[in-house]
Amino acid sequence: MRYLDIQTLLSEEPLLTEVTVKGWVRSFRSNRFVALNDGSTIKNIQCVIDFEQFPTQEIERINIGSAVQLTGTLVESQGQGQKVEIQVSSFQVLGDADPEEVKLTILSPKRHSLEKLREQAHLRVRTNTFGAVMRLRSKLAFGVHKYFQENGFYYMHAPIITGSDAEGAGEMFRVTTFDLNNAPLTEDGGIDYKQDFFDKETNLTVSGQLEAETYAMGLGKVYTFGPTFRAENSNTSRHLAEFWMIEPEVAFCDLDGNMDLAEDFIKSVIQYALDNCDDDLEFLENRLIQEDKTKPQNERSEMTLRERLHFVVDNTFKRVTYTEAIDILKNSKPNKKKKFKFPIDEWGADLQSEHERFLVEKHFKCPVILFDYPANIKAFYMRLNEDEKTVRAMDVLFPGIGEIVGGSQREERYDVLLDKMKAMDIPQEELQWYLDLRKFGTAVHSGFGLGFERLVQFVTGMGNIRDVIPYPRTPGNAKF
Amino acid sequence: MRYLDIQTLLSEEPLLTEVTVKGWVRSFRSNRFVALNDGSTIKNIQCVIDFEQFPTQEIERINIGSAVQLTGTLVESQGQGQKVEIQVSSFQVLGDADPEEVKLTILSPKRHSLEKLREQAHLRVRTNTFGAVMRLRSKLAFGVHKYFQENGFYYMHAPIITGSDAEGAGEMFRVTTFDLNNAPLTEDGGIDYKQDFFDKETNLTVSGQLEAETYAMGLGKVYTFGPTFRAENSNTSRHLAEFWMIEPEVAFCDLDGNMDLAEDFIKSVIQYALDNCDDDLEFLENRLIQEDKTKPQNERSEMTLRERLHFVVDNTFKRVTYTEAIDILKNSKPNKKKKFKFPIDEWGADLQSEHERFLVEKHFKCPVILFDYPANIKAFYMRLNEDEKTVRAMDVLFPGIGEIVGGSQREERYDVLLDKMKAMDIPQEELQWYLDLRKFGTAVHSGFGLGFERLVQFVTGMGNIRDVIPYPRTPGNAKF
Repeated sequence: MRYLDIQTLLSEEPLLTEVTVKGWVRSFRSNRFVALNDGSTIKNIQCVIDFEQFPTQEIERINIGSAVQLTGTLVESQGQGQKVEIQVSSFQVLGDADPEEVKLTILSPKRHSLEKLREQAHLRVRTNTFGAVMRLRSKLAFGVHKYFQENGFYYMHAPIITGSDAEGAGEMFRVTTFDLNNAPLTEDGGIDYKQDFFDKETNLTVSGQLEAETYAMGLGKVYTFGPTFRAENSNTSRHLAEFWMIEPEVAFCDLDGNMDLAEDFIKSVIQYALDNCDDDLEFLENRLIQEDKTKPQNERSEMTLRERLHFVVDNTFKRVTYTEAIDILKNSKPNKKKKFKFPIDEWGADLQSEHERFLVEKHFKCPVILFDYPANIKAFYMRLNEDEKTVRAMDVLFPGIGEIVGGSQREERYDVLLDKMKAMDIPQEELQWYLDLRKFGTAVHSGFGLGFERLVQFVTGMGNIRDVIPYPRTPGNAKF
Repeated sequence: MRYLDIQTLLSEEPLLTEVTVKGWVRSFRSNRFVALNDGSTIKNIQCVIDFEQFPTQEIERINIGSAVQLTGTLVESQGQGQKVEIQVSSFQVLGDADPEEVKLTILSPKRHSLEKLREQAHLRVRTNTFGAVMRLRSKLAFGVHKYFQENGFYYMHAPIITGSDAEGAGEMFRVTTFDLNNAPLTEDGGIDYKQDFFDKETNLTVSGQLEAETYAMGLGKVYTFGPTFRAENSNTSRHLAEFWMIEPEVAFCDLDGNMDLAEDFIKSVIQYALDNCDDDLEFLENRLIQEDKTKPQNERSEMTLRERLHFVVDNTFKRVTYTEAIDILKNSKPNKKKKFKFPIDEWGADLQSEHERFLVEKHFKCPVILFDYPANIKAFYMRLNEDEKTVRAMDVLFPGIGEIVGGSQREERYDVLLDKMKAMDIPQEELQWYLDLRKFGTAVHSGFGLGFERLVQFVTGMGNIRDVIPYPRTPGNAKF
């Protein structure tokens, strides 16, 4: 007798061997057909029970949600859509699920809204949708590691608690061991952080980039993949206070190399999902098709989920300067007809999601990389071009979501970087370690950041970012 | 002309092709031999420059630490220990390193203490020791993901900011957006956390286990690999305030299965390092041999670094109950001769590192798994045995370090778990979601935790945990 997971069992031949399976009951029809799921796959295995062979009180314990162990013969299935099923010879209920209690939860067999599922985030992974999303999330994460490791990158754990708050990427969370009611004060009445755990003010990191740069200048090619934080009061479907970020950083690599890397990386990871998650993608694709039917015609997607993934994998990303993009946008129909919420008047404007999507979906009809942005809308560490107006920044733009990657060649010249920091009031002593990289064997280097949840959203088609991470943290929400 | 990393170049045949290489100068002998390193490997490539062919002022810029690009012919090396070298036809200094400035840093060519290296953590990865350690860290991390992914586990990102503080695994860091000088108060003078970012008190997680359990009960087999935090004032070589933890959790798995998993997992990951990091391991092994020579005979290791790794991979872990272990310890020579700092008098004693190491190194001479510990020295969620005195806990013990893994079968019975929580004053409403797992299709399940830095310490032989993580966080230290 062999105990196998359901994914493995479903790929077996019906050789009439005896098998044991353990999982949770997804449905029980006609007192005869148990659909059993163990999380290894979105597919259930059908287990056929002859109810006359078993005591009624045992049969009655087989309810939606209960955990059972079944032993029987693996036979050719009579039903559709499955090669094999189990003819049950014995079973045991391992854990009951009282139908009256189940009725009060999202485990009950009816459609629940995503909002409702979020409230019971500890149970939602037992639903088809969240099982599929979270399996995909796992495979995508591994695809990320696999890509970098196979391409000579070293994984670097950037610090989470940081003493530097000079990066300016957003509002930060404070980390402290002080009793908030009784924090020690300095003589002039300020908080005496010298008495805090780290003897200084500390926050949760907003990006591991600067630390990753220090490692790229030693190990050559590195990447981070860890949690980052923004204490911004944004209650949108695109923002989380805690999210996972991927940040490769490469020595001796210029902006062109950076664009090559970003394109190759994203294509590889999405291809990995296409190759390894077809069942889950099929389910999520159908889910989107159903969802689309409830929308007005003009809001429906032109592509199915997997078509959208192939759109990225099969197209060469179009590379366009910011300046060219502004020209295209200025002269575009929606701009002239005042259909953009933010009209494009002149060079220097920050692009919004509507502009990015226009370029990708309507104008170029392929993923787009915009580069050479105006210096004054970008961060201090980006490499200044010879025109002294633009920096070697790039954004990768995707259909449906707009920007998915932001990166740049980094300013490798000590004096230029220092001037930029001064102009932006970034204290030199705080970032002397970062300046040091330009002092000892400086070199051209580049990198980018990709918000992992944005990628998971794109690949799963989930509209709300809170539905692609197990326990989302947003303003007012830190349950579980 | 091909641009390749040094690891690749060193494995090439000397086919007299023209190549370009970029990296940092590790040494420059006789105005002729540049040892160049680009971080891809611990090995340098020798580049031979005919200084008479180049202007003196260019040659003078080749200093330790400077970044250079060299082009030349890949020829058979005349030197020892390398197959190929580069006969340089042209070079360019990309980034200077002023010898006077270098002298003030750890980049200068002399022995620096590990303490000194820690102070310049942004530069230490450019040294041989830290390059080796951090490449190994990266490979080990990938070995972890590879093992789980190939064995049907799904990677789960447990939340970092947590609203539950009931796990009791240690002191926590508070996360807040309050102005510490002016936190809002409730009517009775307490802090009004309802006005904080998450509308409640939040902390940094000490473990993702409880959340991982919720996912195991949906996806079957899951693992976490993320940062965890302890706000403990321990200034030791074994403790960090921020460290990375690996926590697998498996539904339908009992303690025996858990021990099988832990043993197989650790062996696989170490084998992955042995298979993929030989150059770095060889370097670190020699480093330890040199270090040992400075120690008195009785403190020297009996095994070399790689022998220690094979000791784990090649031995079957001995499984012993806590009760048996106490008997062995009570009757052991060091106990009778009062050599233990903490003498073992009776059943119920918590084991210290000295006892664990005695069992592994002296008594069994192989890695040991102790199980069935007294309930009252273990956590509330561990499965109570029928004797009602012991729980289904296990610790994996290693030579040199003692405990490397701690795990247990989890209490799957609702009433037993609730009683235990009540007895330990853990508020039910805080953890109702955790109790719910025992209400809806409960099942036997198990898991364990492994502190990733402890594993990296074991595999690299580094004595201080601060030297196996890029930017260590300890009391008083959150630099960079």
